This record gives sequence, structure tokens and C-alpha cells, in this order.
Amino acid sequence: MKREAYVYDLIIVGAGPAGITSAVYAARKKMNFLVLTMNIGGQVTLSSRIENYIGFQYITGEELVKKFQEHLEEYKFELKIEKVNSIKKENDLFRVETNVGDYMGKTVIVATGRKPKELKVPGEEKFKNRGVTYCATCDAPFFDGLNVAVVGGGNSGLDAVLQLINIAKKIYLIENRSQLKADAIMVEKAKASGKVDIWTNTKVIEIMGDKVVTGIKVEKNGIETILSVQGIFVEIGSVPNSEIVNFVKKNHLGEIIVNCKCETSVPGLFAAGDVTDVPEKQIVIAAGEGAKAALSAFKYLSQR
Amino acid sequence: MKREAYVYDLIIVGAGPAGITSAVYAARKKMNFLVLTMNIGGQVTLSSRIENYIGFQYITGEELVKKFQEHLEEYKFELKIEKVNSIKKENDLFRVETNVGDYMGKTVIVATGRKPKELKVPGEEKFKNRGVTYCATCDAPFFDGLNVAVVGGGNSGLDAVLQLINIAKKIYLIENRSQLKADAIMVEKAKASGKVDIWTNTKVIEIMGDKVVTGIKVEKNGIETILSVQGIFVEIGSVPNSEIVNFVKKNHLGEIIVNCKCETSVPGLFAAGDVTDVPEKQIVIAAGEGAKAALSAFKYLSQR
Repeated sequence: MKREAYVYDLIIVGAGPAGITSAVYAARKKMNFLVLTMNIGGQVTLSSRIENYIGFQYITGEELVKKFQEHLEEYKFELKIEKVNSIKKENDLFRVETNVGDYMGKTVIVATGRKPKELKVPGEEKFKNRGVTYCATCDAPFFDGLNVAVVGGGNSGLDAVLQLINIAKKIYLIENRSQLKADAIMVEKAKASGKVDIWTNTKVIEIMGDKVVTGIKVEKNGIETILSVQGIFVEIGSVPNSEIVNFVKKNHLGEIIVNCKCETSVPGLFAAGDVTDVPEKQIVIAAGEGAKAALSAFKYLSQR
Repeated sequence: MKREAYVYDLIIVGAGPAGITSAVYAARKKMNFLVLTMNIGGQVTLSSRIENYIGFQYITGEELVKKFQEHLEEYKFELKIEKVNSIKKENDLFRVETNVGDYMGKTVIVATGRKPKELKVPGEEKFKNRGVTYCATCDAPFFDGLNVAVVGGGNSGLDAVLQLINIAKKIYLIENRSQLKADAIMVEKAKASGKVDIWTNTKVIEIMGDKVVTGIKVEKNGIETILSVQGIFVEIGSVPNSEIVNFVKKNHLGEIIVNCKCETSVPGLFAAGDVTDVPEKQIVIAAGEGAKAALSAFKYLSQR
């Protein structure tokens, strides 16, 4: 299907917290826009329980997505469930190619989020949201008084450990290299707590459990051990979903570089939320960035 | 009351969307912190109806503040309703002086928001939230098909006009100087719409109405006229509540300059929301910035 004759003011790619908020702001500006997304909610749908989206004390990811969706339905605009394969620049316009067809926009907001890197071990898939988590800031408070493992000895792993120090009973820190890569000061703090048992040269073999996680099987120097834990924080990094756009500046992590107004290196191309280099990946932050991106796109069009 | 012996990790000044979100994030990090504020909700309490805080389709300012408050009450921390008179730097610490006493913090988040400049004419106070508004992005959609006046011919006034072009029936643009100060391209767009009646050299005398606004009395060249409008957008600027802190870099508007992490020019001092130079003053953006500020304060303390 070719719809090249038609040019939208704005095409929003993605409908997680950033994309949804962009859409609400664009709708309220009466912009002529299209949302292209694979799903509604993005990574929010992965969260078992959200306590830090301001205004809701406790809400599951599923329920919050439903609230977002209800909010979206107040407005009239086009939303298509299609897979975006690439975004290309053509003169002053952008061509967004999906599995269904091509769409042209004067501006684009990339709000495609990211996906966590996974361990790829048996049990991981089964116990996602049943003890296996990829976000310490989101989920650490649920493990009050319990034993947990943090997999990954870089800064994000140590950040998870430091977040857990006042919460968890005991923390196993598991790193497959011979030493931790994180900043020394973070490692010192972790050690000083007396709560952290550091396992270097250690590989994760399997995640064990029944209904929820009960342990993690690791291998060190050829010996397998089962550590008894109720929570496993996988902190081996995550990947921004930025591969669909190649003509924009990204950092070494592949994140799209934005300024405080969500402008990218390419005029007319904006990005918001976890796909960008914004340092904290949080729902309320992504929502705020989504609002900024839509208002910046509106201003960009006003000034032309 | 002197409590100088006690040093908090963090003192949050203000409890609008930015301050409240900072508090939720600080509580979840189990930081040892204090909130000092004159009220809960800040400028949100002034909004008659909010449609752009994602997750709530329609909510009044009062109701949203209640939701925020309920969320805060989930966490144990100190909140004091006191008036902050000044923040001072003392070596590596900050002294926050209120009408009640002094408090010491290793870090401070300034989230004091701002107040709109008012016309100071009869009727203005009476018809606030009954037709008189200070935020076009928030309230323009409520005036679909109605006549409105925008007071102020600078960029923010023209921004309001451009937001109203697709919504209002007719827009009176009132400016007390001999010409509009806004960017030419914005003025041209306003003129091209055929909907905008520009009144320069015109002073607002009075806001008229019964239960809601019915008109605005203006004076031009000594002649008084009543323009029939249902909405009045006052866009003569607003003032950040930043006078309590003097040792930090501010822009020419008095806004505290922050980077994308809500860091100010002073290590350990953070700022978030409408008191800062973030370009858009919106609830969801302020909330996102509040989260960033708390996480930045936490990292700052982790690294010391």
C-alpha cells in the first residue's frame, strides 16, 4: 500500500509512555498525525507492579496501559498496529516504512523504547515477573527482607546492589568476568554493607523455581552451586530499539542523542523516552519527555 | 527552633508535581529526607480541569492533588508546612531557613514552581478558573467554538493565539504597547487565519461576567469598549519562585538553569519543574523532572 501522496504533520513511532504522551499532546494541539506501533504500553506491559507513576499508588503494568489507552481513546487520530522497518529522510520529509506500507511525515518522533538484554538461560522466560526482573528502580522495593541475586558487575549491576542494600536481606552479586567493572566507590559501598556476597568468574546456568523463583544455579571453577534467592535482577544491559533510523547521531550504546527539548541531530526528527540517551529509564520521565517532543515538533512546524 | 545538629541527605523545597515526584523517588530509595512546602499541589490546585496528565482522562486540579497526596501517604517521611525564606550554602552543606527554623541538608532540590503575572484589574480574581486562565496549553481546548481574548502580544501571547486558532471562533489579541513583540512569523500566521482581531495600544480595564466571564472592558485612545468573550488568556508572563536561592546560576527570567539531569551550577543543589529553565511548563514534564532530580541527588550522594 502506497500512501505517499499524503503527508502527515507528525508520525509518532511507538506507543509506550513516551509515544502515548506525545500523542495526547499532539491531539490537543489538533495536529494531523499518525501513530505507528507494535503494541500499546511498550515495556510497561512487562512490569508486575508499578508504584512510582505519580498519581497511582499501586497499579500493574497491564492496568496502567489500560488507563493510558482509555486516555488515548478520548482523542480522534489514526493509530496503526504495524511494524516499522525503517525511517528515511527524503528532502524535507521523512518516509516511514512498515510491514504494510509507507507513510510520509513532516516530522517524526521516535519513541520505540528498548529491550533488556537477557541471560538466555533455562527458567528465565518462565519466571519473568515471577522473581526475574530487569529494573531495580522499579522492583527493588518488592524484595524487602528477602535474598536476591544481581547478575552483572558493571555500574548498573552495582547500582542495583546499592538500591537493594537497605531493602534485601542478602545480595549475591554474580559476574562472569574475573573482576567487577563498576566504579570502585560503588564496590566499596557494597562491600561495606556486609550484605553482599560477590561471585566473580561465575556463570549463570539456570533459574530455578516452582510458581516463583526459589534459586539460581551458577557455575564457578567448574563447580555448580544453587544459591537460594527469591529475586533475580538481571543487569547485563539493555538495547535501545534504534536500529530503524540510521541518519541520526547516537551514542556508543546506540541511544539516540537528544537535547533537553528532545531534538535530535536532524531537524524535524525528535526522540523521546528510553530509546534516547536520557540517563534514567523511568515511566514518568519518559512521559515527560514525550510531552516535550510533541511540543517541540509543534513549535518546529509553527516556525516554518 | 534550631535543628542544625541533624543533617538530612536531601531537603525538597516545594510539593507541586516536581517536588511530589522527587519525594516518591527519594522515599523509594530509602533516603533520609525532608519536604518543606507551603501547600501540596502547587499551581495544579489552580487548574479547573486537567486533560493532559497521562493516565487520567479528565481530572480537576483538586482531584489530581488528592491522588498525589494519597500516593505520598504510602511512604514514611517528614513533610512540614513551613515557608522557606532562604537557602544558604555552608561548606558542603545547605541551610534551609523557614519561618519556623533552620534545617541542614547534604543536597537540596528546589521545586518551588512559579506564579503567573496578573493583570491586577477588577474581576480578575473573581473569574479565575471561570474563564480567566493563565495557561493556553492547559485550557485552550475548553473554548471550542467560543470567542476569547488573549492579553499579551509577546511570544507567549502569540503562542496562545496559535493554539487557539483551530479551536476558538474569534480571538481578540490585546497588547498595551504600540506593536506586538512576538516573532513576525507567528504574527503572520495569526493574521493569515482571519480569526484574530489585533488591538494594540490597548489597556485592559476590567473583566466582566456573572457566574463566568462574559466580556473584557478595554481602553484604546481614550475610548472604552466591551468585547464579548467567554475566555481570557492572560499571557503577560510568569515569575519563577526562585528568590529564596541566590548563589546559583539563573537566566534573565530568574529561572534556575539546569542541565538534562536537573543539576544546577552548584554541586549538590538540584532544581526541577517550573522554577527551572525547562522550556515547557507542564505537569507531566515537571513530574518527570522531579524524578530525574531525586535520582541525580541519590547518585551524587552515592559517589561521595
